[in-house]
Amino acid sequence: MFAYSPMPDALKPSLNWLLPLTPIAIVVRLVAPEAHVWLFFLAGVGIVPLAGWMGKATEHLAARTGEGIGGLLNATFGNMAELIIAIMALREGLTEIVKASLTGSIIGNALLVLGASMLGGGLKFKTQEFNPAGGRTRATQLTLAAIALLVPALFHHLAGPAGPAREGALSLEISVLLLVVYALALVFSLHTHERYFTREAAEAARMEEEAHAAWSLRRALGILVGATALVSVLAEILVASVETTAATLGMTEVFVGVIVVAIVGNAAEHWVAVLVAFKGKMDLAVNIAIGSSAQVALFVAPVLVFASFAIGPSPMPLVFNGFELGAILLAALIANAVTSEGESTWFEGVQLLAVYAVLAIAFFVA
Amino acid sequence: MFAYSPMPDALKPSLNWLLPLTPIAIVVRLVAPEAHVWLFFLAGVGIVPLAGWMGKATEHLAARTGEGIGGLLNATFGNMAELIIAIMALREGLTEIVKASLTGSIIGNALLVLGASMLGGGLKFKTQEFNPAGGRTRATQLTLAAIALLVPALFHHLAGPAGPAREGALSLEISVLLLVVYALALVFSLHTHERYFTREAAEAARMEEEAHAAWSLRRALGILVGATALVSVLAEILVASVETTAATLGMTEVFVGVIVVAIVGNAAEHWVAVLVAFKGKMDLAVNIAIGSSAQVALFVAPVLVFASFAIGPSPMPLVFNGFELGAILLAALIANAVTSEGESTWFEGVQLLAVYAVLAIAFFVA
Amino acid sequence: MFAYSPMPDALKPSLNWLLPLTPIAIVVRLVAPEAHVWLFFLAGVGIVPLAGWMGKATEHLAARTGEGIGGLLNATFGNMAELIIAIMALREGLTEIVKASLTGSIIGNALLVLGASMLGGGLKFKTQEFNPAGGRTRATQLTLAAIALLVPALFHHLAGPAGPAREGALSLEISVLLLVVYALALVFSLHTHERYFTREAAEAARMEEEAHAAWSLRRALGILVGATALVSVLAEILVASVETTAATLGMTEVFVGVIVVAIVGNAAEHWVAVLVAFKGKMDLAVNIAIGSSAQVALFVAPVLVFASFAIGPSPMPLVFNGFELGAILLAALIANAVTSEGESTWFEGVQLLAVYAVLAIAFFVA
Repeated sequence: MFAYSPMPDALKPSLNWLLPLTPIAIVVRLVAPEAHVWLFFLAGVGIVPLAGWMGKATEHLAARTGEGIGGLLNATFGNMAELIIAIMALREGLTEIVKASLTGSIIGNALLVLGASMLGGGLKFKTQEFNPAGGRTRATQLTLAAIALLVPALFHHLAGPAGPAREGALSLEISVLLLVVYALALVFSLHTHERYFTREAAEAARMEEEAHAAWSLRRALGILVGATALVSVLAEILVASVETTAATLGMTEVFVGVIVVAIVGNAAEHWVAVLVAFKGKMDLAVNIAIGSSAQVALFVAPVLVFASFAIGPSPMPLVFNGFELGAILLAALIANAVTSEGESTWFEGVQLLAVYAVLAIAFFVA
Repeated sequence: MFAYSPMPDALKPSLNWLLPLTPIAIVVRLVAPEAHVWLFFLAGVGIVPLAGWMGKATEHLAARTGEGIGGLLNATFGNMAELIIAIMALREGLTEIVKASLTGSIIGNALLVLGASMLGGGLKFKTQEFNPAGGRTRATQLTLAAIALLVPALFHHLAGPAGPAREGALSLEISVLLLVVYALALVFSLHTHERYFTREAAEAARMEEEAHAAWSLRRALGILVGATALVSVLAEILVASVETTAATLGMTEVFVGVIVVAIVGNAAEHWVAVLVAFKGKMDLAVNIAIGSSAQVALFVAPVLVFASFAIGPSPMPLVFNGFELGAILLAALIANAVTSEGESTWFEGVQLLAVYAVLAIAFFVA
Repeated sequence: MFAYSPMPDALKPSLNWLLPLTPIAIVVRLVAPEAHVWLFFLAGVGIVPLAGWMGKATEHLAARTGEGIGGLLNATFGNMAELIIAIMALREGLTEIVKASLTGSIIGNALLVLGASMLGGGLKFKTQEFNPAGGRTRATQLTLAAIALLVPALFHHLAGPAGPAREGALSLEISVLLLVVYALALVFSLHTHERYFTREAAEAARMEEEAHAAWSLRRALGILVGATALVSVLAEILVASVETTAATLGMTEVFVGVIVVAIVGNAAEHWVAVLVAFKGKMDLAVNIAIGSSAQVALFVAPVLVFASFAIGPSPMPLVFNGFELGAILLAALIANAVTSEGESTWFEGVQLLAVYAVLAIAFFVA
């Protein structure tokens, strides 16, 4: 729904240089299946350029359909790499890591990406003004979703011994509600109030045009399917090695989920946001960052709850722990504060990065 | 202080059609005193039109006195139906239900009423702008009151075994403080800064004029006394049947208090807010909704604490449970966020209603 | 960094009248070392005018150096009296009182001082407008610091039995982070974006000029050293008598720290803020109040953590209790809300004071 991820020419060289990691990871898996730490990092970094290609193929596909369907495609496939990693983890029953990586995506976008954008842009421009209207709608969506994600945990801690029995049903009910709001948000942003979001879409389109000519339908579909297949392979390798890697490096699984997995799943988007900020397009950077946070909370989280009941060995009720909830609520508060101002400086970027660092320290020792 | 409740002509037919429920409820009580579920709904729905007449009589009375006294009357009698229900419940020792219905009033006004107003108005108007100045003062009052209501519960959970002994005194001290702030808020809105609130009052007055000529003092007083007496009778029936009804329908008492009793006590006001929003007067709708929330927290809650010590079998310290506090703080946060924007769309309405639904689900399963 | 504390002529007579308390306190200590309550109040009130002279000497020193160094001096020595009291308390191992007084400084500035300024100014002016830009940067700094201060306590409560072992290291890491942000904040406000803060500095300078001619370097240094020495003596007396005084008056040590010690350490600054508000300079009052809060959280708190590890009999991890954290977060929220408006009335002042009173009641009974 939210996150247009234009991938300008200047970016591709660097990210494409990482494409050889995909065959390397597959080979290492075959010849040295016990080299978990190596496999973890090869697969993690290898996913980044593939996710970029998935995003690009989705945009070309969207450009070939009407605006409504195109927006829907962009919105729904924007987090596909992340969804694939999480689904692989759910199949292994790693529900704690999945919840941690949801948390990590939400705070990574709202703090790390936005902070880096504001710092990067602020080093070049003294102050960067942006129109806060579009971002504000998304900040509100993030807040709503944060509240909804809070309820099952509150219930878990307050409802006493009868709690756990009802948690699954409660999580499903809230997931349905979130998806209904998500669908209405698409109606809102693609249909009734599309003008709020025009500037961003137009800008993204213009950057696309500069970058390359339109792909054929066949090419777009082919690349989407191929990149998705490769991401799935790497995601399986990543997930299979995450527990041993965490133990070897002395990190908790929650830290690995919150910081490492979340960054891998969103790296391409992160890069684009910082890049456009550096080009002075703070509007677009704010929308990508906060929009991605909102989409994770409103769409990815409920979809994974349903997936966990359908495919997982153990269902995943939305019971986040205290740190995770604090971090999510914080991201929502900060998104609201940032979008209420419409102006940014390098020092605001520093402060957002400092909050991210504080949370990372907390998750590291937790 | 806050809630002008003009009751335009178009509304009266529908609400007055519910007036026959009053004699029906009384008759059923006499002939079938064990039909608790029926009595609960007859009395609950029957209170709605009577509360509307109480509000109307208060306004006519207010129009006959000076502006200061009139404002005071409107402010103080605006929540009379709710106060009567709560006092009947306190006499039965149902302190948990009273606290739940206070919570329900606060979130019902700030989420359900405001959400319905924004959705209703937004279906007709693409965006509705409103002057946020008056609403902001009330949002601040709600925040202050929410903080004050939080303290005894914090104390209850953190103060250890010595806590409960001091809770009663603490609640009374905080209630005195809230009433002092309430009195100063009246001085502020009726005396020193009445211009902030002029537009709303003028608008309400104009709607009144359109609707009907002024009542005589005698008629206004007579209707006020008569409606109050009937509300008291129905409130007693409602309260007497609430426990059995909750058990029969498989709901917790807290859910009944938060959702059902709170809606009954505020239905007339709710209806007016949605109606004026549909007429494009979003200013007035926001002020009614947030003003009512603030008044419950700042005036109704402390008055009921005093009443519980005076009349109840058991005093009611202001120790809300975790869900209730979360809901109240949330309502305050959202009231602040909404009044900082000055613009609304149908999707904002959807989001407020979704938050209300999430909380209702939480209270239902709690 | 933040708190310019001009000390106009009109103020000096009253505060200087308290200077004789210094020798009186020293004499009483020698002849009646057991008169703890008397010593506590003599030393506490005696510190107030000395802190005022320290502030004044710092400003004259700052005026003689370049703008950058001057700002640094003002920023760093602005809380010197408070730092001295806290270090004396750390040497006695009174870490709970030190944490309480940090809390008290933060909420005292953001609620008591700002509330008194808005009430005082609002009684004279119907509404006072102020440019919220400078205050907003500081409110954001306060929020960041509040979040950072929250983490070790969250960790303490959530991390289980392994928690305490890591608390010290966690507090030190977060303190380093806060000091880095503090240093960058100085770069921001004194170097890259000094224009945000110009109006305030210029205004403070003008008030200075009106008040008196520049001091010689020698005079400024002499007074700074002398006043600092006397404050140290009184601080030692204050700290030595705090426990017995609290017990004698039936107050908890936390209450004494939050309310009494915090007010003593900040009284001179408090007075200046109210005074400038009364002169219609609400810009300056807001900046002093919120800037002081931010500086305590971002600079004084981490410095004291380091000091506790260096000099104290027991280190002081930043584990605030639930009340303290609630109060600090609240102060940050309110600072943000206030600086987002840019307008104040007497009733806003009343509401801030009411929140302060609610917290004071809570700390008194806790």
